[in-house]
Amino acid sequence: PGFVGADLANLLNEAAILAARQHRDVILMEDLEEASEKVSIGPARKSRVTVEKEKHIVAYHEVGHAMIQTFYKDIVDPVHKVTIVPRGMAALGYTMSLPTEDRYLRSKKEYLADIRGLLGGRAAEEVVFGDITTGASNDIERATGIAHAMVTKLGMSDRFGPVLLDGTKDGDMFPNKIYGEETAKSIDEEIRKMINDAYDEVKITLRDNYDTLDKISKALLERETITGEELNILKKRKK
Amino acid sequence: PGFVGADLANLLNEAAILAARQHRDVILMEDLEEASEKVSIGPARKSRVTVEKEKHIVAYHEVGHAMIQTFYKDIVDPVHKVTIVPRGMAALGYTMSLPTEDRYLRSKKEYLADIRGLLGGRAAEEVVFGDITTGASNDIERATGIAHAMVTKLGMSDRFGPVLLDGTKDGDMFPNKIYGEETAKSIDEEIRKMINDAYDEVKITLRDNYDTLDKISKALLERETITGEELNILKKRKK
Amino acid sequence: PGFVGADLANLLNEAAILAARQHRDVILMEDLEEASEKVSIGPARKSRVTVEKEKHIVAYHEVGHAMIQTFYKDIVDPVHKVTIVPRGMAALGYTMSLPTEDRYLRSKKEYLADIRGLLGGRAAEEVVFGDITTGASNDIERATGIAHAMVTKLGMSDRFGPVLLDGTKDGDMFPNKIYGEETAKSIDEEIRKMINDAYDEVKITLRDNYDTLDKISKALLERETITGEELNILKKRKK
Amino acid sequence: PGFVGADLANLLNEAAILAARQHRDVILMEDLEEASEKVSIGPARKSRVTVEKEKHIVAYHEVGHAMIQTFYKDIVDPVHKVTIVPRGMAALGYTMSLPTEDRYLRSKKEYLADIRGLLGGRAAEEVVFGDITTGASNDIERATGIAHAMVTKLGMSDRFGPVLLDGTKDGDMFPNKIYGEETAKSIDEEIRKMINDAYDEVKITLRDNYDTLDKISKALLERETITGEELNILKKRKK
Amino acid sequence: PGFVGADLANLLNEAAILAARQHRDVILMEDLEEASEKVSIGPARKSRVTVEKEKHIVAYHEVGHAMIQTFYKDIVDPVHKVTIVPRGMAALGYTMSLPTEDRYLRSKKEYLADIRGLLGGRAAEEVVFGDITTGASNDIERATGIAHAMVTKLGMSDRFGPVLLDGTKDGDMFPNKIYGEETAKSIDEEIRKMINDAYDEVKITLRDNYDTLDKISKALLERETITGEELNILKKRKK
Amino acid sequence: PGFVGADLANLLNEAAILAARQHRDVILMEDLEEASEKVSIGPARKSRVTVEKEKHIVAYHEVGHAMIQTFYKDIVDPVHKVTIVPRGMAALGYTMSLPTEDRYLRSKKEYLADIRGLLGGRAAEEVVFGDITTGASNDIERATGIAHAMVTKLGMSDRFGPVLLDGTKDGDMFPNKIYGEETAKSIDEEIRKMINDAYDEVKITLRDNYDTLDKISKALLERETITGEELNILKKRKK
Repeated sequence: PGFVGADLANLLNEAAILAARQHRDVILMEDLEEASEKVSIGPARKSRVTVEKEKHIVAYHEVGHAMIQTFYKDIVDPVHKVTIVPRGMAALGYTMSLPTEDRYLRSKKEYLADIRGLLGGRAAEEVVFGDITTGASNDIERATGIAHAMVTKLGMSDRFGPVLLDGTKDGDMFPNKIYGEETAKSIDEEIRKMINDAYDEVKITLRDNYDTLDKISKALLERETITGEELNILKKRKK
Repeated sequence: PGFVGADLANLLNEAAILAARQHRDVILMEDLEEASEKVSIGPARKSRVTVEKEKHIVAYHEVGHAMIQTFYKDIVDPVHKVTIVPRGMAALGYTMSLPTEDRYLRSKKEYLADIRGLLGGRAAEEVVFGDITTGASNDIERATGIAHAMVTKLGMSDRFGPVLLDGTKDGDMFPNKIYGEETAKSIDEEIRKMINDAYDEVKITLRDNYDTLDKISKALLERETITGEELNILKKRKK
Repeated sequence: PGFVGADLANLLNEAAILAARQHRDVILMEDLEEASEKVSIGPARKSRVTVEKEKHIVAYHEVGHAMIQTFYKDIVDPVHKVTIVPRGMAALGYTMSLPTEDRYLRSKKEYLADIRGLLGGRAAEEVVFGDITTGASNDIERATGIAHAMVTKLGMSDRFGPVLLDGTKDGDMFPNKIYGEETAKSIDEEIRKMINDAYDEVKITLRDNYDTLDKISKALLERETITGEELNILKKRKK
Repeated sequence: PGFVGADLANLLNEAAILAARQHRDVILMEDLEEASEKVSIGPARKSRVTVEKEKHIVAYHEVGHAMIQTFYKDIVDPVHKVTIVPRGMAALGYTMSLPTEDRYLRSKKEYLADIRGLLGGRAAEEVVFGDITTGASNDIERATGIAHAMVTKLGMSDRFGPVLLDGTKDGDMFPNKIYGEETAKSIDEEIRKMINDAYDEVKITLRDNYDTLDKISKALLERETITGEELNILKKRKK
Repeated sequence: PGFVGADLANLLNEAAILAARQHRDVILMEDLEEASEKVSIGPARKSRVTVEKEKHIVAYHEVGHAMIQTFYKDIVDPVHKVTIVPRGMAALGYTMSLPTEDRYLRSKKEYLADIRGLLGGRAAEEVVFGDITTGASNDIERATGIAHAMVTKLGMSDRFGPVLLDGTKDGDMFPNKIYGEETAKSIDEEIRKMINDAYDEVKITLRDNYDTLDKISKALLERETITGEELNILKKRKK
Repeated sequence: PGFVGADLANLLNEAAILAARQHRDVILMEDLEEASEKVSIGPARKSRVTVEKEKHIVAYHEVGHAMIQTFYKDIVDPVHKVTIVPRGMAALGYTMSLPTEDRYLRSKKEYLADIRGLLGGRAAEEVVFGDITTGASNDIERATGIAHAMVTKLGMSDRFGPVLLDGTKDGDMFPNKIYGEETAKSIDEEIRKMINDAYDEVKITLRDNYDTLDKISKALLERETITGEELNILKKRKK
């Protein structure tokens, strides 16, 4: 759905940029091919060097995740490492947690902490730079997914109680929503409240710990990767 | 539908955890394979040992089911056994009832008691631990399914009376809902009221019988399986 | 749609019950096979013996149908026989009417009497036992179907007049509803009013004739089948 | 969609009736075959004899159509004949108009008169018998179809003016409605108003001309078919 | 979708008319064949002679189009000819404009004038005859199509501004509407307002120029085709 | 969907125009072929000469884009060239920006500036000519696409915060909207507000800089292409 005409315009634009960079006035077939690849799968990541300004944003973003996770250390898995070395096509940097054992049950409190950890990256961008980027799009998708499941599948909201609202299974071709418009409205409100309450709380936490966030992010920019242990040491050390 | 990008991120995460546990910095193809299995079918259950904390939760959860069923012993089938020995991939523990004869008719009172029994597990978690887990998701699905059928197919709600609202048959590709948005709203309210009234009642019952719940759960943790007879003896015995 | 995970849980449960009945601790493949048959097509009916309590309910249910039909004897076809001998997989008992000639036109008054006759079974259950069962589900489907057609296809409601609202034909893959949400709401209200007015009236009739209902039902329990003529004689006879 | 289970119950019922008529206690395969034919295509019409009571209803119904058409004789095509001799499977009787020339344009006034003519049958039933039958279902479908096209395709309603609301073409698999819920509500109201205003007017006309309606209907019952000319003569003749 | 049963009834009706015209009492297969052709593709146009009354309506209708176009002669293409000689199966008459050059951009003012020109035919019918016909159905479809595109695709309404509301492309199987119910309501209102304001304006213009409309229409009935030049001369000439 | 009948009428119209231009009274097959090509892919662009009036509009439109982009020169990519020489079938003229480096993150402020740049063309038309054209349709599609993604996928609106509302991925056959009607209404309002606030701001900017807009547009009409450097020089130069 949507915006196919604009895709074509994007393609021509990219091709024209490639030609202009080589001081050519005409668009060659090779420009179109390269443009087409770039538009459909993104710029070739392997050979890439993240530009300095983006590296900066990524560092504060990842430390945002990691710091929030340390605030819920009794509930969520401990941070294993934070890095701004890109991994495949999936991320400019990432924060890795290491569960100490396999578990089969997840509790409401754990999920709420997970949501806070996921929103730590975007919150750090807003608190530090006053602007927000597309770097949080996967975090937002995952946080929304957790909140959605809590409300509609796991009976973990006060508003609805232990009721199944969405019977969609993995692999279903169509969603199996077991409710009407009025309930849809309440579900939307509940999910948004869950996420935005968490986001507000996370921003306050990061503002209250601005100096630590800044210190660790600078360390990450320098070393590119820091371990969970180093993170804890940095966090405790006076400036 | 939904959250496919997040699935990929989950996969990479699991693979990275597996690598890290073996003190490797690189993700090997075997990590991806194991992670892929884990993500799509859950951790291999056969070789598993439920962690201590989860065993604890499961015990109170199952005793919650069993105790509520004993409170409706004139209406529902008697409890045959309660166990925290996992069965296949389907459950961490379970409570089994044993009907004494095949029946062809089910009554409204029986269904209402069934819903209470199903919600006993989640209610025990909330009453005992103050947190709730994903362990109740199948119970919630079944309780909602019963309430849904009572209201929309069996004419068993006061609000709608003996009217067919949902003509969907097993095997239908699309739902066959015979009503508009306003009725959808009323159906949603009716189902939610049925479930939440039951849940509130069940929580009160378990709080009123907290000592018994605690005693039997501890016995279950010790013996791993208790029969319906033992359950009745434990229930009657003074502390 | 819906409740597939719960189906699996049901299957395992049934299999476990079969094993337990034979004092086995393990579930064999044969248990799963028998459970699977039972879950998908219902318990094998041919060899069955209706349990005593259910026979009781069925008798009052069928006499409820038959008695209401006799109250509209100038409008609807006369009762041919009432029986509690099960027929195939389709019914635990049934009331059969015998039209005296083929007709091509049906009138609004006839349809309204049909709806009352269909609701007589459920009404008898509620009046006699104070509980209602799944035995009326087919009656509810047919009564709703008649009311639905009267309102949406036959122009037989005061509220809408001679207007076609639902153009769906037999064999259509999708419903062809020729109206919006607001009309859907009015249709739902109209159908529900038609059914519930009929149901209330039928319950009053059965309460007013409780002794006759009781007497005939007991006769049916004894003889298992009674003819229309016998029904009329029993109805007239003083206690 | 809808009421498939009830179809099966109907089939069994019809088969049982056939058996009972031949004083048999068992349902043979031949009963099922005949019942199946009857349920899916209606009773075999060729050999049929309309029962006396139905013939009566059909006569007044057809004369209702014909008389209303004569009241709009300057606008609509003249009545050619009225008959209660059934034609194929499509009708118990019918009123035939004979256009004097092919036309390519239809006007709003013509369509409004057509709707009145179509509703004349049902109106006669209500005025004469105080009950209404399924005999008008095709008339209702056609009258609604005309009103629907006037409002949504031909810009012939005051409420909407010359706007296309429904772009569905013959042969389209899905309807192509070019409007939202609020407009749907207004369309429904407009169509219903058009039909019900016409119906009320037609009933008044027939009540005002009750004697003529009665006289012509009796003539039709006697002769079975009357021509347009005979109709006009009968209409003028004093009683 | 819709009205299939009524189609069958139409077919039988047409066949019966054909039989009656040849004074036959039975419907032959050839009647059904001719009726079927007529119902599905309309009466055979090539050999047809438009009846006098329809010719009259068509003449005023076409002059209605042409006159309105001359009122916007600085904005829209000049009228090339007006004719009441039917063209293929597509029209009983038509007004042809002749653009003087190919253009790639269309402006809001041009589109608004186009809508007025398209509504000129229907408006002339209403002003002159006080009744309206199906002859305007294609005009209505085109005028609505322009208004729809202006509002939802071209950002040419004051209410919504430069926003894409409908992303559907030619060849899309499903519409790609990028908005909810509330917006749908506003779109409907906006389109209807655009069309009805134009229609009212056009009717006033034609009433104010009734004599000219009448004079030119009579000339067209006489000559059957008049050129744009002749139109302008007629328009200026005093009566 | 939609307006297929009108397409046929368009085709006949185009064919008739082609015939008339060659002073023929009949439509030949070759007219239909040429008309068909024109209707389905637009007039053959390669051999075309933009008419003078359209060239004029295009020049002000493109300079509108370019000038707005220079007002956000710290945020968006610099203008490389502006031209009114048509490129393929995709544009009558265009403004090309040249990014200096590949980037992987886009920020909210960048997107808001992009929307303003895209609306610069339409705004220039309105400010200069007091009429607006179809030339902006691709710009509108792209601006709406950006606003839509910001609100529903990237969590970049104040109203909703970091929540995923639309889970549709490239290549999905159906949209995956994760919200109900009430939220749909708010999304529509939010997107419209984003676009219209931007459009109002852009119009004010162009009115405040009317002389510069006029001067550069005239230069572009003369030279047909001007570079980014020339643009900056023209912008600074006193009249």
